[in-house]
Amino acid sequence: MSTLVFGHKSPDTDSTGSPIIWAWYLNQIKGIDAAPALLGEPNTEAAFMLDHWKLDKPQIIEGVSAGQDVVIVDTNNPAELPDDINAANITGIIDHHKLVGGLETAGPIEIRIEPVACTATIMWKMIGKDMAQMPTEVKGAMLTCILSDTLEFRSPTTTQEDKAIAWSLAEDLGIDIPTYAAQMFAAKSDVSAFSEAELLRMDSKEYAVDGKQFRVSVLETTSPEQVLARKAQLMAAMPGVAEEDGADQVLLFVVDILNEEATMLIPNDLTKTVAEKSFGASVSGDQVVLPGIMSRKKQIIPNLKV
Amino acid sequence: MSTLVFGHKSPDTDSTGSPIIWAWYLNQIKGIDAAPALLGEPNTEAAFMLDHWKLDKPQIIEGVSAGQDVVIVDTNNPAELPDDINAANITGIIDHHKLVGGLETAGPIEIRIEPVACTATIMWKMIGKDMAQMPTEVKGAMLTCILSDTLEFRSPTTTQEDKAIAWSLAEDLGIDIPTYAAQMFAAKSDVSAFSEAELLRMDSKEYAVDGKQFRVSVLETTSPEQVLARKAQLMAAMPGVAEEDGADQVLLFVVDILNEEATMLIPNDLTKTVAEKSFGASVSGDQVVLPGIMSRKKQIIPNLKV
Repeated sequence: MSTLVFGHKSPDTDSTGSPIIWAWYLNQIKGIDAAPALLGEPNTEAAFMLDHWKLDKPQIIEGVSAGQDVVIVDTNNPAELPDDINAANITGIIDHHKLVGGLETAGPIEIRIEPVACTATIMWKMIGKDMAQMPTEVKGAMLTCILSDTLEFRSPTTTQEDKAIAWSLAEDLGIDIPTYAAQMFAAKSDVSAFSEAELLRMDSKEYAVDGKQFRVSVLETTSPEQVLARKAQLMAAMPGVAEEDGADQVLLFVVDILNEEATMLIPNDLTKTVAEKSFGASVSGDQVVLPGIMSRKKQIIPNLKV
Repeated sequence: MSTLVFGHKSPDTDSTGSPIIWAWYLNQIKGIDAAPALLGEPNTEAAFMLDHWKLDKPQIIEGVSAGQDVVIVDTNNPAELPDDINAANITGIIDHHKLVGGLETAGPIEIRIEPVACTATIMWKMIGKDMAQMPTEVKGAMLTCILSDTLEFRSPTTTQEDKAIAWSLAEDLGIDIPTYAAQMFAAKSDVSAFSEAELLRMDSKEYAVDGKQFRVSVLETTSPEQVLARKAQLMAAMPGVAEEDGADQVLLFVVDILNEEATMLIPNDLTKTVAEKSFGASVSGDQVVLPGIMSRKKQIIPNLKV
C-alpha cells in the first residue's frame, strides 16, 4: 500500500500543497510508492492552487488503517490529525511548528522541524539538487505554499530562506509574485459559500491559557469588510461552536493582509479582557483593531492572557 | 551567556563528542557563542577520545539556569536530561532516537532527527561544505563517535551514510579504522575502576514493558570475560540499583563487540522469562548467550516481553 502523505485537518494551502510536493519526491526521486491525501476539503485558496496548476485534488481520507505507512507534514500535533494516527506507521515528520509531543513511533524516524514560515521551504532544502527534476505544477504548488504562509512576505514568521526560495521559484516559473499573490488572496477572501460555524473553524487551533480553553480562529483576507459584514451572525455562532468543540470561548481575528492588521471580535467581557491584557488594546464596542497583528503563531498565541 | 550544547546523562562517546562538534560549528561557522557541556563524567571510551585528540574535557554541569539557551544532542528524552530542562530556552535538538515527547519550547525550533546510528553523522550532513573548515581534532571526535555508535559498523543500526562518512573522515585524517577502533574498544572495555552499581548504570535506559519497569543496561566490550568474572557481584547489586532507581528489575546485556553476541545475566525467574519470551532463548543457569544481539535500540527494546 502506498505511503500516505498528509497535513492537518481543515487543510489550508500548505497542508494541501506540501503533501503533493513530498509524494512527488518520494515517488520520483526516492522510489517510494506514495500518494498525497487530505483530512478534509481544501480551503478556497488551496482549491485555487489546485485549479491554477492543474493538480489533481488529493484523496480525502477520514482516518488511517493500522500499520499504514504515513508521512506527516505541516503539523506534529495529534489533535490536528486522525484519532487513530498512532496506529499508523509514521515514517517521517516535516513541520515548522512548535513540538507538542504525543505522536508515537516504534523506532527513530526522520523528523525535520525548522522555524521557517512554511513546510514547503523545508522541503525545498531537503530536495536540494533534485529540484531540477521537479515538474512545473509541483514547483507552482511550492511557490503558492510559501506565498500563502508568509502572506506574501508580510507575516513576521517570514525568514530570509522563505523569501529567497519563493523568489527563485517565481523566476523559474515566470510568475509575477504581486499579481499571483493577489489572485491567491482573492480566492482565500471569497468566504461567501461558508456558514458562520464553518468560518469559525476554518483556520482554528485550540489553546489553553490560565485554565481557559480557547479556540483561536484566524481569517486572513484582503476584504475584511466581507467578513465583518457578518459580525453579528459570527458572534451569535460562537457559543455553539465553543460548546460543541469543548472550548470556553472562540476568539476570532480577521487579518487584513494588505493593511497588516487584525480585527478581533469582542462579543463579551471575557474577550474584552483578553484583548486588553494580551494586546494592550483599548476596547469600546464589539470589535477592536490590532495594528501589525498578522501571525497566530508568532504574535497571538505567545501573548494570550486572561 | 554562551549557548550550552549537551547530550544525555552518563555521557558516552557520542554524547561527549557531538556537543564538541556542534559548539565548534555554532562558534566558528554560525557566529553563535557556544560551549559544550557534559551531564556527568565521560565514560572510558569518551575519555580516550578526548585524550587521543587533545580535546579539552567539556565542563560538567548539574543543571541549567532558567532561560539558558541550550542545544540538546543525542537524546530527546527529558528523563535523560536535567530535571529543570524545560526551564531552559531549548533552541535546537539533533538526535537519532525515537521521539518520546516531553521537551517544551515556546515556539518552533530547529529539530533534526534521523534514523542513523550516530548524532555526528547527522551533524556532518548539516555542516555540509563547512566541513572543509573543521579542525583535525573535531573531525577526530566525529570519527570516534561514528565508530563508537556503530561498533565499527557491526551494529545493525549502522547505515550506509554512517559508513561513508566515517570512511571519508578516516581517509582525511590518515586513520586506519581497525587499529583505531581496537584502541577505542580496549578503552571502553577497561571497567576495572567501576563498582558493580556503576557498571549497571553506565549505559542504561529505563523502559516499561507490560506494566514492569526495566532498567535495560548494556556493556559493550571486547573482553566480556572481564565483566563476566564479576557476574555474582553484578547480580547481587541488581536489586539495590533497581530499587533506588524505581525499577522492577535490571536487565544486563554484556555485548561482545568482536563476536557479535550478547550475554544476558539471569539472576531470577523474571529475567529467565524475559530472555525466553523476548529472544526465544533456552535458558539454563545464570546467563544466556544471545547470538547476533548488539543493539538495545534495534534488537533488545523492540523485542522485550514479560
